[in-house]
Amino acid sequence: MKKEEKKPVSALKIIPLGGLEQIGMNITAFEYGDSIVVVDCGLAFPEDDMFGIDLVIPDVTYLKENIDRVKGFVITHAHEDHIGALPYVLRDIPVPIYATKLTIGIIESKLKEHGDLLSHVKRKVVKFGQSINLGELRIEFIKTNHSIVDAASLAIFSPAGVVVHTGDFKVDYTPVYGDSIDLERFANLGKKGVLALLCDSTNAERPGFTPSERTVGKTFDTIFNEHRNSRIIIATFASNVDRVQQIINTANFYGRKVVVEGRSMVNIMDIAETLGRISIPEETLIESDQVKNYPPERTVVITTGSQGESMAALSRMANGTHKKVAIRPGDLVVFSSNPIPGNEKAVTRIINELLLKGADVIFQDAHVSGHACQEEIKLIYSLVQPRYAIPVHGEYKHRKAQARLAEQLGVSKENILMLKSGDILELSEESAKVSEHINCAPVYVDGLGVGDVGNAVLRERQRLSESGIVVATIAVDSYSNMLVSGPELFTKGLVYEKESDELLDEAREELTSALVEAFDRGTSDWGKLKSVMKDSVSDYFWRKNKRRPIVLPIIMSV
Amino acid sequence: MKKEEKKPVSALKIIPLGGLEQIGMNITAFEYGDSIVVVDCGLAFPEDDMFGIDLVIPDVTYLKENIDRVKGFVITHAHEDHIGALPYVLRDIPVPIYATKLTIGIIESKLKEHGDLLSHVKRKVVKFGQSINLGELRIEFIKTNHSIVDAASLAIFSPAGVVVHTGDFKVDYTPVYGDSIDLERFANLGKKGVLALLCDSTNAERPGFTPSERTVGKTFDTIFNEHRNSRIIIATFASNVDRVQQIINTANFYGRKVVVEGRSMVNIMDIAETLGRISIPEETLIESDQVKNYPPERTVVITTGSQGESMAALSRMANGTHKKVAIRPGDLVVFSSNPIPGNEKAVTRIINELLLKGADVIFQDAHVSGHACQEEIKLIYSLVQPRYAIPVHGEYKHRKAQARLAEQLGVSKENILMLKSGDILELSEESAKVSEHINCAPVYVDGLGVGDVGNAVLRERQRLSESGIVVATIAVDSYSNMLVSGPELFTKGLVYEKESDELLDEAREELTSALVEAFDRGTSDWGKLKSVMKDSVSDYFWRKNKRRPIVLPIIMSV
Repeated sequence: MKKEEKKPVSALKIIPLGGLEQIGMNITAFEYGDSIVVVDCGLAFPEDDMFGIDLVIPDVTYLKENIDRVKGFVITHAHEDHIGALPYVLRDIPVPIYATKLTIGIIESKLKEHGDLLSHVKRKVVKFGQSINLGELRIEFIKTNHSIVDAASLAIFSPAGVVVHTGDFKVDYTPVYGDSIDLERFANLGKKGVLALLCDSTNAERPGFTPSERTVGKTFDTIFNEHRNSRIIIATFASNVDRVQQIINTANFYGRKVVVEGRSMVNIMDIAETLGRISIPEETLIESDQVKNYPPERTVVITTGSQGESMAALSRMANGTHKKVAIRPGDLVVFSSNPIPGNEKAVTRIINELLLKGADVIFQDAHVSGHACQEEIKLIYSLVQPRYAIPVHGEYKHRKAQARLAEQLGVSKENILMLKSGDILELSEESAKVSEHINCAPVYVDGLGVGDVGNAVLRERQRLSESGIVVATIAVDSYSNMLVSGPELFTKGLVYEKESDELLDEAREELTSALVEAFDRGTSDWGKLKSVMKDSVSDYFWRKNKRRPIVLPIIMSV
Repeated sequence: MKKEEKKPVSALKIIPLGGLEQIGMNITAFEYGDSIVVVDCGLAFPEDDMFGIDLVIPDVTYLKENIDRVKGFVITHAHEDHIGALPYVLRDIPVPIYATKLTIGIIESKLKEHGDLLSHVKRKVVKFGQSINLGELRIEFIKTNHSIVDAASLAIFSPAGVVVHTGDFKVDYTPVYGDSIDLERFANLGKKGVLALLCDSTNAERPGFTPSERTVGKTFDTIFNEHRNSRIIIATFASNVDRVQQIINTANFYGRKVVVEGRSMVNIMDIAETLGRISIPEETLIESDQVKNYPPERTVVITTGSQGESMAALSRMANGTHKKVAIRPGDLVVFSSNPIPGNEKAVTRIINELLLKGADVIFQDAHVSGHACQEEIKLIYSLVQPRYAIPVHGEYKHRKAQARLAEQLGVSKENILMLKSGDILELSEESAKVSEHINCAPVYVDGLGVGDVGNAVLRERQRLSESGIVVATIAVDSYSNMLVSGPELFTKGLVYEKESDELLDEAREELTSALVEAFDRGTSDWGKLKSVMKDSVSDYFWRKNKRRPIVLPIIMSV
C-alpha cells in the first residue's frame, strides 16, 4: 500500500450479508471509506421447513441504505448460489456488474427473463489478470478452477491492506478448458503481504486433493467402451460446461449422436458455444425428435435432473412422462454428479425407478467435485500467508474444519475469524473486530411475492400441512345479536370425507352446545364468541383423535 | 419332507404384505393349506410427502379375511420395522406371538403402552434351535447376528419344501453378547435342500464384510484414551444393547460414571438388564441430576437422538433445551451411528449446533452396520444353495444388487424373484409363479386415527403447505335468495397480515363484482355460486402473484 498521501488509514470493513448460516446466498460487502463493493449475489434453495417457498434471497437493506456508496457487484462465477439473487437485488441496487465472459453471458440471459433489468444495469467483462477500480477499492480477477468455466478468485486492494477471496475453487493442473489456477499470482500476493484470506470451505473436511475434471473424461471413455450396445443417458449439472464438453468428445469418438434435454442445459450450452467456451463438432448434436431415427447404441442423451428434481428431464424419463425419451430395458443411465446434501432420497427414488424400468445405473463413479480438498486449501494458505483467516462458503462444520487447517498452517488462533451473516468486521494490520451486527434475515420468494411470507406464515403452513384446517362459521343478526345460522364446519386436509361426516356431526353438536351456552350467558363480544368456537372445536379434535388442526372461526353479521 | 402320507403336495404361498416399495413395514405371510404364519409386523416412518402422518403400517385385510387360518406371528427381532405395527394389527388379528427372549420382552413393553392388548394376546419365548409347529408349517429359530441381540433367522418347513428367511443379519464371528451366527445350521439345511431363500438386501451394494460389533469397542477405547479431559457424550440407537454394553465397559475401565438419556434407551436397557442381555457393573450408572456432582471428565452420557430427531435428548442438549445436560466447550460428542437415508440434513444441523457451542464432534468412525455386505450374502447363498432367491429388506436397488449376487452364485435368472408387496407367490419344486396380486397400500396413522387419512387428504395438506388457504364467505337469504352479507375473505398460510390487507381488499372487490354479476344473471344454484367464488379468488391470486392457495367458498343460508 502506498502511504505517501498521509491519509489516515482507516479499517476495511467486511460484511457477509448471507450464506454463513445456510448453504447458498453468497454475498459479501467490502467497504472502505466511501466505497462499497459487493462480491457475489446468490440465492439459496428452500430448506424442508420453508413450506411453499421457491427461493431464498439475501436481505440487502444495508446496501439500500448506503446506495450512494455502492460501486458495483463483482461476481466470481455463474452458479446460482453466487448470481441467483441478482434479478431481485438489482431492482433496488442497480449498480454495474463486473465479471468474466461466461459469467456475464449467463447473468445477461438471466436478466433477460426478468423484464427491463438488462437495459437498466451496466455489465463489464473483465479478463483474468485485469483490475477494476471501484472508488477506493481495486479488484483484481485471478484465474481459478471450478465446476464452471471462467471462475475467478479476487484480490481486493484497499488502503488498509489486500484481501484475497478465493471464490469457489479447486486446483486443477489439467483443466478441460483454459488455464490452470494462477498459483503464481497467489504466491506473489502472499509475498507482498495479504491482510486476510476468505477461502472456500466446502470440502475442508476431506483429506487429499480433488481429482482433475479431466479424470471424468477417462471414466466416460471406459463407460462408453464397456457399453457399446446400450443407449447411454448421462445426467449432470446444467452449468458444468466442461463436463458436457467431455461427454460430447467421448460420444464423438465412439460415433454417437448427442441429444441435450433440459431447458437450463440447452440454454447454458448455447451461451457457452456463442462465447467459445465449448466446442461442438459439426453434426454431433441432434434434436430430441430425431432420436428415433438412430439405433439406441448410436445415441447419447445428456440431461438435467441429476439431483432428483421432480420436474427435471431425467425424472420425467424415469416416470414415463417425458415426451421424447422413454427409459427402456438395456439403457444405461450414468449419474455424473453427487447428490447435494438433502437430495439423497430424491436421487435414490429415481435410481429405483430406473432399475425397475430395466435400465442399468452407474452412480457417483463419473464425477469429481469442483471444490478444493484439504491439501489444496493448505496450498492456498501456504502461498497467500494471510494475517487473518476468514473461512467462508460452507456449513459451520466445514468452516470450522478450515479453521483447524488454518491453525495448523500457522495462522494464530485469535486471527481466525468465524463470522456470522450480518457481522461488520473491521480489519486492519493492527486489529480485527466485529464492531457491529446488522439484521439480515433471509428473504423468502414465494411466487411473485418477495418478502411477503415470513416465519409466522410458514408456521401456519406447517400446521396446515400436519393437521389441516377446520373452518367454523355462524351468522349473527346484527340488530338482535342472535344466532341466525350455523354453526357449520368445513375442513381441508383433516380426514377422509366419509370419516369426517361422523366426526364433524359430533364436533358441530358440541360447538352448538357451547354457543348456546355462550349466548345464554349474554355473550355478544365477537372476540369472545370466536374464542368459544375455537376452543370447542380444538378441544373436540384433540380429545377425539389427538389432532391439532388450525381452527378458523368466522362470524357473519346479517 | 416325508411323503409317506401320500397327501397331494400343493404349493407354498409367500405373500409380502408390505415393505418392498419402501423401507420398513416388514411383514410376510407364509401359507400352506389351512395354515398361515406371519413373519414380522413392522411399521415405516413417514416419507417427506406424507404430511402430518405419524406412522405407516401395513394393510392386513388379507389376514383379516383369513383370520381362521392365521396361526401366529413369528418375529425375527425387536426393531420397529419388524415389530412396530403389532399394537395396531393385533387388534384385528389377536393371534399368538413367537419370538426370542429379548424380542418378546420389548414387544411386551410396547403392548403395555397400548391398553389391554397384553392380556389378550399370547406370547411364547422360543430358543435358538427350537421349532414351533403352527398348523401345517413348522418354524425353526436359528441364531444370527444383528444390531440388536437375540435376532433370529427362520427355517420354515412346509410339505412343499423348506424356506430360509434370514431376517436382518450380519456374520459376526466375535459378537459382544451370545454366539456367532449358526452357520452350521444354514449349511445343514442347504445340504438337505432348500426351496427358497429370503435374504436381507440392505448392504447388497457394498463389497466386502461388515466388521464385527466388537471393533466399535476398540474404537471407544481409543476415543476415551485420547479424550481423558473431556466429558464424553455418545449418541447411538436405543435398541443397540451391545453398543451400550461396550460404552459402559469402556466407561468403567476409564473410571467414568454413566448417565443414560432418552426414554426409549432407558426402557430397553431396563428390559435387557432384567433379561440378562446386558450386564452393568455396580455403581456405574448415575441419575442425570447427579451428573453435576462429578467432574466432566469423569462422566459419560449415552443418549438417543443420533438420527437428528428434533425431540430426542441429543437435539435438546444441542439447542440448549435439555433440562439436565447442556453442551459446554470442551465436550466431546460421538455419533455412534450412521444417518439413515433421509436424515442426513437433520444430523448435519445438530453437528453444526454442537460445534457452535464449542464441542468437538466425532462422526461415523464409531459405528458398524448390523447388515451383511456382499461377502456375507455370498456366504449364506453358498451354504443354503436355494432353488429360488427372493431378495427382501431393501429398496429396489438393494434387492436388485442381491439379485445380481444370486445370479453370480449360480441361481438361474428365472429363479430369482423380484416381488412386489401384495404379490401372492406360489412356490413348489416344479414352479414359481405370482398367481394373484392383492391390494395392500400402506395405512397411515395420524394421531389416534388409523386409516382415516388417505392420499386425497395428503394432497390437500400438500397444497395447504405450499400456498395456504383462502376462505370466502357470503350469506344468502333463504327466501329471497339475495346476498345479505359478504363476501368476506379470510386466509391462513398465505401472506403476512399487513401485506394481505391490501391484497384481500382487491380480491374482495373482484369477488364482489363477480357475485353481483352472477346474482344479476339470476344465478341461484349454490354449486354455481361456489364456482363463481372459487374461480374469482383463484384467478386473482394466480394473476396477482402466481400463487395457488386452496379456495374454500362457504355460503350461509339465513
